[in-house]
Amino acid sequence: MNKVFSVLVLVGVPLSIIGALMHWSSILMFIIYCLTIIALASFMGRATESLAIVAGPRIGGLLNATFGNAVELIISIFALREGLIGVVLASLTGSVLGNLLLVAGLSFFVGGLKYKRQKFNVYDARHNSGLLMFGVIVAFVIPEIFTKTMSKSDTLNFSVGISIILIVLYLAALLFKLVTHRGVYLTDNVAEDRHEEEEPEWGKWKALIILAIATVAVGYVSEKLVDTFHTVGEAFGWTELFIGVVIVAIVGNAAEHASAIIMAIKNKMDIAVEIAIGSTLQVAMFVAPVLVLISLMFPVSMPLIFSMPELIAMVTAALLMIILSNDGETNWFEGATLLAAYLIMGIGFYLL
Amino acid sequence: MNKVFSVLVLVGVPLSIIGALMHWSSILMFIIYCLTIIALASFMGRATESLAIVAGPRIGGLLNATFGNAVELIISIFALREGLIGVVLASLTGSVLGNLLLVAGLSFFVGGLKYKRQKFNVYDARHNSGLLMFGVIVAFVIPEIFTKTMSKSDTLNFSVGISIILIVLYLAALLFKLVTHRGVYLTDNVAEDRHEEEEPEWGKWKALIILAIATVAVGYVSEKLVDTFHTVGEAFGWTELFIGVVIVAIVGNAAEHASAIIMAIKNKMDIAVEIAIGSTLQVAMFVAPVLVLISLMFPVSMPLIFSMPELIAMVTAALLMIILSNDGETNWFEGATLLAAYLIMGIGFYLL
Amino acid sequence: MNKVFSVLVLVGVPLSIIGALMHWSSILMFIIYCLTIIALASFMGRATESLAIVAGPRIGGLLNATFGNAVELIISIFALREGLIGVVLASLTGSVLGNLLLVAGLSFFVGGLKYKRQKFNVYDARHNSGLLMFGVIVAFVIPEIFTKTMSKSDTLNFSVGISIILIVLYLAALLFKLVTHRGVYLTDNVAEDRHEEEEPEWGKWKALIILAIATVAVGYVSEKLVDTFHTVGEAFGWTELFIGVVIVAIVGNAAEHASAIIMAIKNKMDIAVEIAIGSTLQVAMFVAPVLVLISLMFPVSMPLIFSMPELIAMVTAALLMIILSNDGETNWFEGATLLAAYLIMGIGFYLL
Repeated sequence: MNKVFSVLVLVGVPLSIIGALMHWSSILMFIIYCLTIIALASFMGRATESLAIVAGPRIGGLLNATFGNAVELIISIFALREGLIGVVLASLTGSVLGNLLLVAGLSFFVGGLKYKRQKFNVYDARHNSGLLMFGVIVAFVIPEIFTKTMSKSDTLNFSVGISIILIVLYLAALLFKLVTHRGVYLTDNVAEDRHEEEEPEWGKWKALIILAIATVAVGYVSEKLVDTFHTVGEAFGWTELFIGVVIVAIVGNAAEHASAIIMAIKNKMDIAVEIAIGSTLQVAMFVAPVLVLISLMFPVSMPLIFSMPELIAMVTAALLMIILSNDGETNWFEGATLLAAYLIMGIGFYLL
Repeated sequence: MNKVFSVLVLVGVPLSIIGALMHWSSILMFIIYCLTIIALASFMGRATESLAIVAGPRIGGLLNATFGNAVELIISIFALREGLIGVVLASLTGSVLGNLLLVAGLSFFVGGLKYKRQKFNVYDARHNSGLLMFGVIVAFVIPEIFTKTMSKSDTLNFSVGISIILIVLYLAALLFKLVTHRGVYLTDNVAEDRHEEEEPEWGKWKALIILAIATVAVGYVSEKLVDTFHTVGEAFGWTELFIGVVIVAIVGNAAEHASAIIMAIKNKMDIAVEIAIGSTLQVAMFVAPVLVLISLMFPVSMPLIFSMPELIAMVTAALLMIILSNDGETNWFEGATLLAAYLIMGIGFYLL
Repeated sequence: MNKVFSVLVLVGVPLSIIGALMHWSSILMFIIYCLTIIALASFMGRATESLAIVAGPRIGGLLNATFGNAVELIISIFALREGLIGVVLASLTGSVLGNLLLVAGLSFFVGGLKYKRQKFNVYDARHNSGLLMFGVIVAFVIPEIFTKTMSKSDTLNFSVGISIILIVLYLAALLFKLVTHRGVYLTDNVAEDRHEEEEPEWGKWKALIILAIATVAVGYVSEKLVDTFHTVGEAFGWTELFIGVVIVAIVGNAAEHASAIIMAIKNKMDIAVEIAIGSTLQVAMFVAPVLVLISLMFPVSMPLIFSMPELIAMVTAALLMIILSNDGETNWFEGATLLAAYLIMGIGFYLL
């Protein structure tokens, strides 16, 4: 798998540059950009993982928690600069739905085909449920309803306030998990010290250099990718919404999808769930509010107001995950339920 | 009880035919039809139960799961043929509310008067909670919100897609429960092998013949019943909505109401809960989508779009049941809570 | 603390009378009235507590359950008489949010700074979750949606029906907790017989006399307080909504806030949770419906219809509390989550 990504990067980055200079067709370039970003993202993920092992669990957790969605953050910043607020909100929605329903659903389903009952830490499940309820439901629903009659500037002020509260609570959650309550909530299947045992793939400096180069490359390709949205959307009859919810979300999260499923097949459900739900929370409580704050520097600011279909899709997805994960157990049918929900929403966004 | 139903059938079926020929008043005929259907439904229930015992737990579970709401399905098909989409959606709502709030509420309440704490399998409770969240909340709320701005044909396409997903997941749930995970989630009070112990009331052929005749008779009477709705509604000042939510739901589910309560009094809460919540899921995930697909053959097709009061009533009822049933225990107060919710919704639908 | 309240009463009551006669500025009087009511409320609380100990746990529970929100009831009745329906609904919302998010949030947070994990009775948690789901979600959401197309008189009839059902179920909950299932659901950390051990602060007659005088005084000052709302609102640019949600709610519940936090610091989480959630349920299931019924005697009747922001704030707050409290454990981060939700809603109501 890693070899495939290496080849993809070695071929994709030059092609991205050459194709742009030679004005190849937008649709071809769109495909090249997407594949290149997926491959670069896998390098960023491996570099972050190596650094996390070197740095120890606390700093490592922080690194994973901030760099985990770096690709999506970068694509979104370029989209914001172009004023494509609808695409950004849609891709945030797509990330939440993709992680909660598609990544978790595939992990539960595939893992469940091999094992009758798979368990993960029930305390983590409850902790995550509380955060999903706060980050996805309270923090996204309240502005939607309250700003119906608000002026545009009040709406933006409210969004900024909520964004700051979200980021502070996200950092507090890291403090809780990595410092004050580290190791407090353990169950029998202790997977806590996995980091200590592991050998980093790359040394500290090699990882840092790869991370830096890959980030710059992702930035370059992302900017080009955003420029193709308009033409590609017209060619395939896709709306901004569908591009954001499905395409950007899949490209931005492809690496996570793969590793969550691999962990589920190894019966390491703690990690699979952490990737799926942890990623969701990171998007809702860190990436989204950071984008709101960054957008203040661009001509068009982005309020934290999703469209009703986006909001309701995220809310019902969060409720479904809260109920399914609450007992710290999974099986193939719970996976199938999540996938069915994703399918329903996917069709809905396509028809919108 | 069985004797009463036998007499009711022997008197009711001839009266239904004679009254129709002699053009008796619609209100009288409405009452005769309702009572006859309730009595016929009890025969269908007994025949299905006998067949289920003969066929063994797997096929038996499938039989119960598909024939359990046969009466309601038949009435609804005739209403669909008349184009009474509002009545059908309302009666589906009524079935969901009636099973979740009235049947379960009465069972919990009456059972709780005799026993301080009644327990049922907590794994079943969680499995059912996940399905309620999917079948009632995700699958019904998403189309409501997404189709606000959709064209009529897209709305119907979306409904068809969701219906197929619902039916597939319902069948997957049967596969999970009856095949792959049969007996995996057991608790102390094992009521699993009850079927094996029981003697069927009727032999295989007798049960099949009774089932066939009763189904034909229910079909005949249902068709007549639907014709009286308009006149009866005008006479009593009832709307289509109220007839559907309350009258059709009670007539269509009367047999289940009785057996759930009897099981609760016998402290067999596993079965009482299975009837109440199982029936709800069957209506939401099988009867409703099957009716959407069948309606495609009629002049007026039925999308899976409920009115807002119907939707919100089902969603809040499902949430209430999820929270109350989550611990695998019931008492009289939980029953009273469900009944209070039913009362509030009943008054609401009457005033609408 | 008690001494401060004694001084506040001895100074505040005369100042309230003198200031009213001398026509002091509305803003000064508003502050005097608020502080006096907070101090009087603490006397009512202590008198009720003494009476509850004397009367034994059953009648005591009933006393606490009916007099616990007496101050808020009294302020609201005077506001209703003035036709200030918006203020009353807003102050009910504020009480629900204040108790669920601010009182519980501060208790969990402050208690959690001292203790890593604090436990309370998980059966109480589930019982309360069911009531929150019924009292805040079913009983408030259903009329909101159902009355969208109803006539004004039907809306009022529906509100009255729901109010009666709420009061009956609230009394049934007391019967369940204090009589039929008293002591049935115990966990290890038994705090059940705390009442029996305690010495009442005041004798029966002294407590009764203090309760009577304080109630009359609260009534007098509340009437004056309501008169200042209009002027104060204009002076500070506060809307009726903000005064109701924040000011009235804090003044009316100040005493409870203090005692819940003190209990959390003493690691008596059962009592802290009981104050926070018990108070919420009392407001939703007793104070609110009683006010609807009382309003029928005034020129302007109050339907049980909140504004959308009020409703959604209460619904999401209840869902958040249900998820966080479901495991019978708290920690500082759960407190921080509740406080963050309160902050978001507070900003929202200020900007509205």
